[in-house]
Amino acid sequence: MANWKNLDELKSFDALKAVAPVDVRSVMSGESGAKRVRDYQIPIACGLTYNYGAKAVDAHVLDALAKIAEEADLHVKYQELLNGEMMNTGEKRLVLHHLCRGQLGNDVMADGVNKREFYVEQQKRAADFAERVHAGELTNENGERFTEVVQIGIGGSDLGPRAVYIALENWARKNGRLKMTARFISNVDPDDASRVLQDTDVAHALFILVSKSGTTLETLTNFQFVQDALKRDGLDPKKHMIAVTSAASPLAKSDDFLTAFYMDDHIGGRYSTSSAVGCAVLSLAFGPDVFAEFLEGASAADRASLETDPKKNAAMMDALIGMYERDVLGFDATAVLPYSQALSRFPAHLQQLDMESNGKSVNRFGGPVTYPTGPILFGEPGTNGQHSFYQLLHQGKTIVPLQFIGFRKSQLCSDVEIEGTSSQQKLCANVAAQIVAFACGKDDPDPNKTFDGGRPSSIIAGDQLTPASLGALLSHFENKVMFQGFLWNINSFDQEGVQLGKVLAKRVLAHDTDGALTEYSRLLGI
Amino acid sequence: MANWKNLDELKSFDALKAVAPVDVRSVMSGESGAKRVRDYQIPIACGLTYNYGAKAVDAHVLDALAKIAEEADLHVKYQELLNGEMMNTGEKRLVLHHLCRGQLGNDVMADGVNKREFYVEQQKRAADFAERVHAGELTNENGERFTEVVQIGIGGSDLGPRAVYIALENWARKNGRLKMTARFISNVDPDDASRVLQDTDVAHALFILVSKSGTTLETLTNFQFVQDALKRDGLDPKKHMIAVTSAASPLAKSDDFLTAFYMDDHIGGRYSTSSAVGCAVLSLAFGPDVFAEFLEGASAADRASLETDPKKNAAMMDALIGMYERDVLGFDATAVLPYSQALSRFPAHLQQLDMESNGKSVNRFGGPVTYPTGPILFGEPGTNGQHSFYQLLHQGKTIVPLQFIGFRKSQLCSDVEIEGTSSQQKLCANVAAQIVAFACGKDDPDPNKTFDGGRPSSIIAGDQLTPASLGALLSHFENKVMFQGFLWNINSFDQEGVQLGKVLAKRVLAHDTDGALTEYSRLLGI
Repeated sequence: MANWKNLDELKSFDALKAVAPVDVRSVMSGESGAKRVRDYQIPIACGLTYNYGAKAVDAHVLDALAKIAEEADLHVKYQELLNGEMMNTGEKRLVLHHLCRGQLGNDVMADGVNKREFYVEQQKRAADFAERVHAGELTNENGERFTEVVQIGIGGSDLGPRAVYIALENWARKNGRLKMTARFISNVDPDDASRVLQDTDVAHALFILVSKSGTTLETLTNFQFVQDALKRDGLDPKKHMIAVTSAASPLAKSDDFLTAFYMDDHIGGRYSTSSAVGCAVLSLAFGPDVFAEFLEGASAADRASLETDPKKNAAMMDALIGMYERDVLGFDATAVLPYSQALSRFPAHLQQLDMESNGKSVNRFGGPVTYPTGPILFGEPGTNGQHSFYQLLHQGKTIVPLQFIGFRKSQLCSDVEIEGTSSQQKLCANVAAQIVAFACGKDDPDPNKTFDGGRPSSIIAGDQLTPASLGALLSHFENKVMFQGFLWNINSFDQEGVQLGKVLAKRVLAHDTDGALTEYSRLLGI
Repeated sequence: MANWKNLDELKSFDALKAVAPVDVRSVMSGESGAKRVRDYQIPIACGLTYNYGAKAVDAHVLDALAKIAEEADLHVKYQELLNGEMMNTGEKRLVLHHLCRGQLGNDVMADGVNKREFYVEQQKRAADFAERVHAGELTNENGERFTEVVQIGIGGSDLGPRAVYIALENWARKNGRLKMTARFISNVDPDDASRVLQDTDVAHALFILVSKSGTTLETLTNFQFVQDALKRDGLDPKKHMIAVTSAASPLAKSDDFLTAFYMDDHIGGRYSTSSAVGCAVLSLAFGPDVFAEFLEGASAADRASLETDPKKNAAMMDALIGMYERDVLGFDATAVLPYSQALSRFPAHLQQLDMESNGKSVNRFGGPVTYPTGPILFGEPGTNGQHSFYQLLHQGKTIVPLQFIGFRKSQLCSDVEIEGTSSQQKLCANVAAQIVAFACGKDDPDPNKTFDGGRPSSIIAGDQLTPASLGALLSHFENKVMFQGFLWNINSFDQEGVQLGKVLAKRVLAHDTDGALTEYSRLLGI
């Protein structure tokens, strides 16, 4: 049995606080810096490497972190999760997203079935469905092929699948794997659905309604919106719609859909990209083989996260360093900076994954936590960010730890040489340059041109962004967030903080308001 | 002459720190909250209102803030800026973006010309050019109309114009004002340009190269990329290209372009949406009339920012409250939350505007500042964010002040009724609900379902997002950032923090590296 204690109840945490802090600028200079970059790296999977040379750690800090990993039973807790222990204590649910991509522990039985078999069955059903669509066996009412797919969902039913679709769209074009273009409707703002529908060839589009409960306000509203649009065009909505939902939801047996694929309560929305939520849309867009490669990459990174020694476990090390930055060094935020346009929406997915999982103030038993938990997370692709918010990161009064991501090859492999170097080389040169600029800074007689340095960063470097390496990247962050939740002794798998707003919004719509709520409703014309 | 002192040298700042903090939860409850929402609002322009009812202020705090505004000469400094004082002390330049949309001070002479006349002349030239294109007088080599426009630029040459284009595209479609679709190429990642070019009908596309200096690495690389693509299609690049640059740049007189529109050194990139940088692409996309409406909205908000009393000056009040949150209450970040899908990239623009302007550690004379300056800024549209990072905002350990934006009407006015309310009403109900949920929280016997409240927020509410209200919104934030720079006694108009990375990237490409830089270059395959 794992040892569940608050972080500040661990002796090893006291020991960590007593370790002398590392002067990043000093240790990253000269040969010492070169050695750190060579030594401080851990393979993830699928060619990805996590390098923490420029983080504010040294042998003493790393030893202290390793002792915390041990005292907090990080490895044991991960195994218990894989074996189907009830890790989502608030909602009394298991946490089974890993099972969508492999089985690393015991058989997990729940809801009367073997869950690994259940998830694989849903993947097979979605794959068969996608193949029938791609083969032209399943068509619209006029016998014409479906060429587009539109996902209707919000939060975890949107951000992860959307980020993955955008990340692989160019790769799929280049490699002849783009079967159908995908679009996404999420916001209850009617302009979102209106606009996507304007751009969509609805007669040749399949729509996927994604809602676990079948009761998500935004999604049901947009479902109606799309049904109306189909009817206006003389089309039968139920010939264009599939559902991804839980078997118990009102949508599961509805006649409104061609078919339904199932998810369950043991996979939270923000962890559901590997489940039917991502499987249906991504199998339709790219084919089931590509989705299978994505899952294999995630599974490989899941296996790598089983290592007990944090120096060999990238997700665990990333988690420990992030905790150190948050709870000892006192940094509030972290920026994710992918040097890959394809990852333009990956930070938005990580923003949900991290902030919704670990933005908590009570521990997994409902007791208080008195230390900082999950950080603020934001990011944009480089080099765009360099011409935007990097000014504050370099010279602002608040230090923001950084997480770079970079690939040696582009996806489309179409490039141009200027002054003897390709765009891809320029892109990669900028990553290397930024890490060192942030770490080492620069003295200058003009204080305005002085860089203090000492800004810690890590990088995940890979060969190319492919389905497999993207799967590994996603899994790395999921497991990092999981390990951090273990460290903070919080439940990373519920989201009670989203409930109050929903309740009050219903009261506004029912005109059941008083005080400030009445005035704000008036201000907004309701 | 204005009084330039560091914030902590102001007597009124000491007085502010001595004022008792406000318990947001308490004052926002019941009739007190309703009264605050009614009282604490300031008109901006074009139907926009800034409401700060849910901020952590009361009569005592507001009086103290008003005294700071006075002692810091905020009003005088704004007038000096408008009158052409050298406000960009680091680069020894004027700060003239306001002059693009009106003249609120004296004539400003620089570079041997009247700058207002110069900017208006460039607007007229761009308008004439756009009208010739729209009328089919200026065509491609086959005499066919140009139907698309592609902006090539990065940072301020990208984020602002792109955010404005996205914000108005639906409005323009709905109102018959969409003349040409626009796309944007920014990143040096070759997959960015490759992908945009795949989606573009290049034979009928005009490309706008935007670089003030004419030396921006990313932009020149993408220029070459586009030229190559045009040539591959048998097209003459110079019949498809215009430039926006400074009159002194190598691009200004180049034969590579149909024509060039000019900007100058007195308008920084992040403030250049009102200048030729935004004018060319937006006039082509929507027509010069729409761009003129946008400028009129911005000008109206510029005039509103002239009020000396912060209780009547929304931008000044917003700036003062932001400084109070940063320097007295100790919050590191702020989130911008537009409940409008059209504003999906507006936070990314504000991220540059705010973090690049005020992420500084030296004052305008090069002396140190010992207090926090510009905050971390991030955001995504609501209601999407509610299903993502709002968990941390509601229940996390770090309080993040919030800036909501909402409109009573949608842009496309296509909607659906479910359970008696439209999507737009649901969207607006959620804004009202969130503000109150953040402020007032909720007690619950289950600590996991408890909301502490006390999360401060403001809202800018308007009738509809139109060219004029968008101009006012942009100007509000520009002037807020300006007033905050005055408060912090920093130069909000340079960006020395972006230089070091550029220098090191060149060294990597020249293989002139040592230490850690060599190792990171190797890791990234250079």
